[in-house]
Amino acid sequence: MTNIYAERINALRGLMSRNGWDAVVISGSDPHASEYPAPRWKQVEWLTGFTGEAGDVVVTDDHVGLWTDSRYFIQALEQLQGTGGELHKTRVPDAVGIPQWLAERARVVAVDGLCQSVSAVAELKDALGDDGLVVDVPDLLEEIWEDRPSVPVSPVTTLDVECFGGVPRVEKLSWLRKWMLLQGYDKVLLSSLDEIAWILNVRGADIEYNPLVISYLLVSQDYVKWFVRKSASYGDVDPDTADSFTELQFDGVSVEDYDAVYMGLADFGGEDSAGTIFVDPSTLNCHVADYLETVFTRQGIVRGVSPVILEKSVKSPSEIAHLRQTFIDDGVAMECFLHWLDEEVATGREVTEWDASEKLTEFRSEIPGYRGNSFENISAYGPSGALPHYSTPREGSAVIRSCGLYLVDSGGQYLTGTTDITRTVPMGECTQLEKEDYTLVLKGMIYLSMAVFPRGTAGCQIDALARMPLWKGRRNFGHGTGHGIGYYLCVHEGPQSIRYQYNPQPLLPGMVTSNEPGLYREGMHGIRHENIVLCKEAGMSEFGEWLEFETLTCCHIDTSAVIPELLGPEALAWLNAYNDHVYRTLAPLLPPRTAAWLRDRTMAI
Amino acid sequence: MTNIYAERINALRGLMSRNGWDAVVISGSDPHASEYPAPRWKQVEWLTGFTGEAGDVVVTDDHVGLWTDSRYFIQALEQLQGTGGELHKTRVPDAVGIPQWLAERARVVAVDGLCQSVSAVAELKDALGDDGLVVDVPDLLEEIWEDRPSVPVSPVTTLDVECFGGVPRVEKLSWLRKWMLLQGYDKVLLSSLDEIAWILNVRGADIEYNPLVISYLLVSQDYVKWFVRKSASYGDVDPDTADSFTELQFDGVSVEDYDAVYMGLADFGGEDSAGTIFVDPSTLNCHVADYLETVFTRQGIVRGVSPVILEKSVKSPSEIAHLRQTFIDDGVAMECFLHWLDEEVATGREVTEWDASEKLTEFRSEIPGYRGNSFENISAYGPSGALPHYSTPREGSAVIRSCGLYLVDSGGQYLTGTTDITRTVPMGECTQLEKEDYTLVLKGMIYLSMAVFPRGTAGCQIDALARMPLWKGRRNFGHGTGHGIGYYLCVHEGPQSIRYQYNPQPLLPGMVTSNEPGLYREGMHGIRHENIVLCKEAGMSEFGEWLEFETLTCCHIDTSAVIPELLGPEALAWLNAYNDHVYRTLAPLLPPRTAAWLRDRTMAI
Repeated sequence: MTNIYAERINALRGLMSRNGWDAVVISGSDPHASEYPAPRWKQVEWLTGFTGEAGDVVVTDDHVGLWTDSRYFIQALEQLQGTGGELHKTRVPDAVGIPQWLAERARVVAVDGLCQSVSAVAELKDALGDDGLVVDVPDLLEEIWEDRPSVPVSPVTTLDVECFGGVPRVEKLSWLRKWMLLQGYDKVLLSSLDEIAWILNVRGADIEYNPLVISYLLVSQDYVKWFVRKSASYGDVDPDTADSFTELQFDGVSVEDYDAVYMGLADFGGEDSAGTIFVDPSTLNCHVADYLETVFTRQGIVRGVSPVILEKSVKSPSEIAHLRQTFIDDGVAMECFLHWLDEEVATGREVTEWDASEKLTEFRSEIPGYRGNSFENISAYGPSGALPHYSTPREGSAVIRSCGLYLVDSGGQYLTGTTDITRTVPMGECTQLEKEDYTLVLKGMIYLSMAVFPRGTAGCQIDALARMPLWKGRRNFGHGTGHGIGYYLCVHEGPQSIRYQYNPQPLLPGMVTSNEPGLYREGMHGIRHENIVLCKEAGMSEFGEWLEFETLTCCHIDTSAVIPELLGPEALAWLNAYNDHVYRTLAPLLPPRTAAWLRDRTMAI
Repeated sequence: MTNIYAERINALRGLMSRNGWDAVVISGSDPHASEYPAPRWKQVEWLTGFTGEAGDVVVTDDHVGLWTDSRYFIQALEQLQGTGGELHKTRVPDAVGIPQWLAERARVVAVDGLCQSVSAVAELKDALGDDGLVVDVPDLLEEIWEDRPSVPVSPVTTLDVECFGGVPRVEKLSWLRKWMLLQGYDKVLLSSLDEIAWILNVRGADIEYNPLVISYLLVSQDYVKWFVRKSASYGDVDPDTADSFTELQFDGVSVEDYDAVYMGLADFGGEDSAGTIFVDPSTLNCHVADYLETVFTRQGIVRGVSPVILEKSVKSPSEIAHLRQTFIDDGVAMECFLHWLDEEVATGREVTEWDASEKLTEFRSEIPGYRGNSFENISAYGPSGALPHYSTPREGSAVIRSCGLYLVDSGGQYLTGTTDITRTVPMGECTQLEKEDYTLVLKGMIYLSMAVFPRGTAGCQIDALARMPLWKGRRNFGHGTGHGIGYYLCVHEGPQSIRYQYNPQPLLPGMVTSNEPGLYREGMHGIRHENIVLCKEAGMSEFGEWLEFETLTCCHIDTSAVIPELLGPEALAWLNAYNDHVYRTLAPLLPPRTAAWLRDRTMAI
C-alpha cells in the first residue's frame, strides 16, 4: 500500500480515528444525484482511483471496499490493484449490500449527507439498529482533500426559445404553479439539475457533457428562487452570466446564493406555518431532506415523483422541428467521419481508437450550434467493443485494422438538441459469427423501429421486439434497449425507457428515445446499432389511437456484414429504404467525394 | 314490473323491511370465489335474470342496479328489460363502484358474507363510514328462494396417477408441509376448489364444466382435514364416493362435514394458542375470514398468495406425456367435426350453430377418458363470432352458410387433461376484410408460437409478439392472449398469463398456456385462432438459459382465407409445417374419408 490512493485512505483513517468513526461511506454521487458528477464530487475516484460511473466505497480500520455492478467488475479489479481495495459485487445473487456489511462491523458510521440519498441513509440506519449511529458530515473529505475542486462556476446562458425551440420559462412556471394549485402544495423544491435547467431555460457547463448548472429551485405561487453559486458573493460574474440573471429576474426569478437554500426554505414570510412543500426524494440529498424536517411539519413534506420529469420528456413542436434538422447535421458529421475512417484504414494509415475519436469530435465541432459532446465517445475496435462502457484511453488504444468490427457510440450537444448514435462498422473481412451477430442485432433494431402500438403502451411491452431475433439465436444483451434523451440536456433522461425490466410509463407522442440493441462477446467483439426515434401519432381506428416511431438519426447502416436471408425480407426492405433516405437527405450537404462514397455504401442489397 | 324477477325483488324488499336493511348486495360468486358458480349460487341470475359470468346486484327500496363490465353491457340491457333493473357500467372512465354508490344512499347494508370477498366487504365498510353498518347474513336469499338448489353433492372420484398422470397426494401434501415448516406456519386453510382438487387428487362434478368438489381443506403437520358435504350426515354416500373417502383416509386425510370447517378451525388440540394459519384472501370468503379472527390472534392469521397456485401450474412429466396424447385425441374429434361440418354445409343441409355445437360434443364424447366439456361450446357464425363470450342459444341460433367465417371455441375434460381450442373456419367465399383479419390474427398466433425467450421472462413481456401484426394494421383485441390451463381441472388457471396487462409471473418449463389472439368486428365477424402451448427448455448458451413453446394442440388451420404475402414467409413456413405435422399425426387415427379430406386441407400454400 504505497501508492497515492493508499496514502489518501490513510489520511481518511486518521480523520476517522480523530472523530471516533468506525467507518465512512463515500458515494459516487453529487448533491443532486446527477448521473455524472463534477470533479468536486468524484470522491470515489479521488480516494481509490476507480473511474466507473457507479460505485460506493466503504472504509473501515482494516478494509477498503468498493461496491459496484457487473458493468465495472473488470475495470474495478484492474484499478484497485495496489490500493488494498476490494471489490464487492452488487446486483448479483446473494450480494451483500453496504448496510448489511456494515451492520456486522461498525457502530458509528460517517457519511456525507450531501452526497447520499434519503433512502440510502435510511437503509443504513435500519441495518445498524438502535445501537448504531449515522453521522452526517457535509463535505466530509474536505479536510484531507487539499486541492479539492470547488463547486463549478461555469457561465450561465439562457436559451432563445424563439430561435432554438422550446417553451418560454414563464409558460413552464405557470404550468408548474397550476399543478401545485391542483395538488394543493404551497411550494416545490426542484433538486434535479436537468429539471431546473429545463424549467428555467438555462444552460451551463458545470458537469462534463451535461449543460447543467449546480443549483436548487424553490417555487411558490409568489416567488421563484434559484439558488446558484453564481451570485455576486462568489466573486465576479462574467457578463454573459450577468445578462442571463437579468433576463431571469425580468421573468420573476430571483437569483440567490447556492448555500442560501436553507435560509430560503426556512423563510416563510412571517406566517405561522411553513405550509406544504413537494420534493422528489430520488434527487434530493439526505442533508437537505433532514433540514426540511426542522422547518416543515411531517405532514407538510410531500414526497413524490417530480412532474417536471414527464413534462420535460415530451418535446414541444418547435423542439421536434429543430431535432429533425439537428440529427441531419449530426449525420453529416458522422458520414464525414466514417468516410475519413474508411479511407485512412484502406490506405494503410495507422488510426488508433483514440485518433478516430478525436477526428469524430473534430467533425462534430464544425456543426453550427455545437456545444460539446453529449458523453465521452466510445471508440472501440474488436475486443474493446465487447465492453459496453469502454473508455477509450488516450495512450495505447488499439489500432483499427482492415478487418472485423469497429464500434463508435457518440453524440453531440447542440443548441437545438442532443444526439446519440452508435454505428458498428465492418472494417473489412468479418467472421461468420460477427456477421450473424451484426445481422441479428440489426434485425431487432429494425423490428422495434417498425413497431406500431396503441396509446398507453409502455416501452417494456415492446422491448421483446428488439430482442426476439437475438433470443431465437440464443443470444442476449444485458443493458436496456432504449433511454429517453433530453433537448440540449442530459443524454439519458426518463421517465420512459424501452427495457426488459418493468417500467409502466407509457410512450407518449413527442418522447424521444434511443433504440439500441447490442451483443457483446468478451475477448472477441461488440455490436450495437443505435438510432434515436421519436414517438408520434399514427392515426385512429375503430380499435383506438395508434402510435409509431419516426427515426430521427440520419446516418447509413453498413450492409457489408449483413446476411440478407437472416435479416429477412421485411427488415431488409426497411434497411434499404432507410439507407436510400439517408443518402438522398445527406448527399446535397456532403462534400462531393463523401457523397459519392455514401452512394456506394447505401446501394440496396 | 310484473315478471318473475320483479316478484323476487319485491320478496327481497319485504325481507329488507322486516330486518331494517336499507340495501342488499348480491354477488355472482360462490363461497370459494369460483369462476363459475354452481346453480345454488347463481343468485344474480335468480334475482334478475342476468346470466353473464360477472355481475353484482344492489337492491334498495327504489332501485335495482346491476354492476358489470363491457363484455356484458349488451346482454345486461337485454336481460334486464321488464325487471326494472338498471345497468351500472364497471371498468369504464368515471365508473361509480357499489361502495361509493351505496355510501350516498344507505346506512345498513346486508351482504351474504359467504359469497363476498374480504376486500369487497372492507371497501363497503370504508365507504359507509362510522355511521354505516354492514350486516353479514349467510345464505341471505334462503328465506325467499323457495326451491333454491342445495350445495351440490356429486360423486367424488380419486385420480389414479399411475394410469393418468400426476403426483401422488402424499407427495403433494409433503411438499405443502415442508413449505409450511420453512415459512413457520402451523396451519394452511385452502379455500380454492381447484387447489383442493389438485392437492388431494380428487375430482367431482359440483360445478358445470369444472370437475370440482365444494369443500375446504385444513392442513397441519399432524392432520389433513377435508371439509366436504359428502360425509354420512348428508345421507347416503354412493359407493364410488365411499371408496374415494376410504382411499383418502388411508393417505391420512380425514373427511369431515362441510359445515364443520368452523369447528375444525377452532379445535387446536387443547393448547393455549391456535398458532398461525395461512390463508389466501383472494379465494377465502368474508364469513370464514371473520370467523378466523375470533379464533386466531391478529398476528396468527397470515394472508398471502397460496403456494399451490404456482406448483399446480407446472405440470409433472407424466402429466405432460399424457397431455401430448390427449391433445391428439382431442384433435381427432375436432377434425371429424370439421369434416362433418364442411360436408353438411357443402351439400346444402341446414346446420345451425346449436346443431354444430351438439355434433362437436358428440365427437368429443367418443374419446376414451372424456368426462365432459371444459366450458360451454362457443359455436358462432358470422356476426355471432364478434361476441367473444357468445352463448349459442338452443333455439333460434343462426344457420351456418357456405360463405364467411364460423368460429368454434371448445374444449374437453379428460382423465388425462383439459383441452381448449378455437378454430375459425372459412365456410366458403370470404371478404377481403375477413381474409386480412384472419391472416393478421394468425400471424400473431404464429409469431408467439415461435418465440424463444430467456428464463425469467413473463407472459406480458412477449404479448406484443401476438399483437404486433394486428397493431400494424391498426387493429387490436380486448382480451388476454393466453391463460393457464389445469390438468383435468379448470380451463382457466393462474398464475401465469400472456397479457397486455402487467403480470410479473415468469413462464416456467411445464406451464401450459393458451395462445389465442383474436379480432372482433361488431355486426360483421369474429376471428380467434387458439392453440395450447407448453413452455419447455430450449437449451443453454453463454447468454443464459432459454425457453420456448411446444404446441400441444393438434388440429389443422384452414389456409383458404390466408393471404400468403400478408402472413409473410416465416409464418407461412410455420403454418405449412404445422399443418403437415397435424396431417401426419392424425391421419392414421382418422376414418379414411376424413384423412383424405384432411390431406387436401393441409396441403402447403
